Amino acid sequence: MTRTTVESATKTVVIGFDEPFCVIGERINPTGRKKLAAELEAGDFSTVEKDALEQVACGATVLDVNSGAVFTNKMAEDPRYADNNFVEPPLMKALIECVQRVVDVPLCIDSSVPGALEAGLNATTGRPLLNSVTGEEERLELVLPLVKKYNVPVVAISNDDSGISPDPDVRFAVAKKIVERAADFGIPAHDIVVDPLVMPIGAMASAGQQVFALVRRLREDLGVNTTCGASNVSFGMPNRHGINAAFLPMAIGAGMTSAIMNPVRSVEMEAVRAANLLMNHDPNGGEWIRLAKVLEAMKEGASFAEASKAATGAAGGRRGGRRARG
Amino acid sequence: MTRTTVESATKTVVIGFDEPFCVIGERINPTGRKKLAAELEAGDFSTVEKDALEQVACGATVLDVNSGAVFTNKMAEDPRYADNNFVEPPLMKALIECVQRVVDVPLCIDSSVPGALEAGLNATTGRPLLNSVTGEEERLELVLPLVKKYNVPVVAISNDDSGISPDPDVRFAVAKKIVERAADFGIPAHDIVVDPLVMPIGAMASAGQQVFALVRRLREDLGVNTTCGASNVSFGMPNRHGINAAFLPMAIGAGMTSAIMNPVRSVEMEAVRAANLLMNHDPNGGEWIRLAKVLEAMKEGASFAEASKAATGAAGGRRGGRRARG
Repeated sequence: MTRTTVESATKTVVIGFDEPFCVIGERINPTGRKKLAAELEAGDFSTVEKDALEQVACGATVLDVNSGAVFTNKMAEDPRYADNNFVEPPLMKALIECVQRVVDVPLCIDSSVPGALEAGLNATTGRPLLNSVTGEEERLELVLPLVKKYNVPVVAISNDDSGISPDPDVRFAVAKKIVERAADFGIPAHDIVVDPLVMPIGAMASAGQQVFALVRRLREDLGVNTTCGASNVSFGMPNRHGINAAFLPMAIGAGMTSAIMNPVRSVEMEAVRAANLLMNHDPNGGEWIRLAKVLEAMKEGASFAEASKAATGAAGGRRGGRRARG
Repeated sequence: MTRTTVESATKTVVIGFDEPFCVIGERINPTGRKKLAAELEAGDFSTVEKDALEQVACGATVLDVNSGAVFTNKMAEDPRYADNNFVEPPLMKALIECVQRVVDVPLCIDSSVPGALEAGLNATTGRPLLNSVTGEEERLELVLPLVKKYNVPVVAISNDDSGISPDPDVRFAVAKKIVERAADFGIPAHDIVVDPLVMPIGAMASAGQQVFALVRRLREDLGVNTTCGASNVSFGMPNRHGINAAFLPMAIGAGMTSAIMNPVRSVEMEAVRAANLLMNHDPNGGEWIRLAKVLEAMKEGASFAEASKAATGAAGGRRGGRRARG
């Protein structure tokens, strides 16, 4: 039974075939969020705090922390800021310290800069998920030693030096290569969470079927947990939430065990909670019934985050992680 | 490749592994609809006409017609009306004639009374779906000869003389028995659409997983199409539409090819259309984009049926069946 364990100082979350779907909150990411990047450049972490609290209230059990900011003003003054190897490591440390001050869920350290990954590993209490390694040779050689040294699980993205293949067999082969290379480092398969890469359905009509088949194969042949950037599937299409809300249950039915997604969207979270119920991963329907009350409260005008926070408060702060320890 | 063909006078719908999910509209059914039963008793078919038109506008490609009415007033005057064998055959004929006057989609003749099934078969133009046979000996002996005589496909419900088994292996065995018995009559497997029976998740926590596994097995081992009463899964739970809207994509992902459901509910139809898109059964996303416009129109206050009708009109009446002939 494949179980990937991630931990904060006080909470353990298990990603696994017999566990509720693991929702990894994607909001703390300055890539493509210019306002957030500008705030971070000015040393303002208030949006990060708000995003951390809201995502946990809405049901994320792990938070992704991405340090991919571009500091345009500082860059104009000091050319070193044009280099992400310079910008990201201290920013990652600051982001993680901020998030750990306000919430107690495990974290997912997300950067393309190895130095930022290591700064994150040093700043994080517990056992974070590292995001990510790919099949690219340079990346394998830089990231797998960190995975081994810090004894953490890692997200493995199934592209390599030749890019992202449209052929699912090639993407499977890349994932297999990463699992094998990790084994050479003494990293077990249950500490690898494969992202099979979700293509936009608008660009590739077979994208959905590809992912469902890949997830099943990754699970059966490699015995690994899986994740994805869930919203990518609907890119460029109208009514994206409706597509995402069908994609998530279908992926969960095929065996997907986690996703990096926006938990502040009620439509997607409703789909995940319903899928958990239908997979018998919600004992007595407790989470579903709690969500139904939150959705009911939204009819009076509250946002999903507000209604979720109110419900969390009413429940005595029991939410935010499935297995509280200590 | 399993293809179940149903036809009206002018339209053909194929239920199949490589076809869009077949939505069989469930509304024309006086069971549990006292007002409708009273109208039918008084010879008033206006609700039936409205339900037929709305369901087709909303995307049903087949309409179920159920004659299971109880005529309380007539029963008080004439004891023969206490017998469904007396009530249903002429009612089925009248219902089908009414529905065929207003819409041109294929029909599904639904009754527990063999005489009503035969009355329906005689009244229907084209190749209707017969609903249903079970594994009960008496029912097999009464219904399969009709299936053979009229050369129509049939819904096979996986219960038998011992009732509905909670054990999916038993339900599979019942389905297998029906397929084998049908073969003895010369009825091919592709003319049998198995309903594996969906239990309420609130009463049986494994109900979802059971159905997904059964559908896969029915498809792989028996090569048959499948259907179900989709809304049954959420019986007794809060926010039923949310559960149904995750169940349908998961069932479709597992290989379910049709459902008897309420197409006038936008949440469920959105889930079906998104699942079709993700299964690559919606070329160029045409149906999805059309639905997105209907949902957009609903934001201004129109009901799903109204907005769907308006869209159908605008599209020059092209909707209502995927493959128009003649």
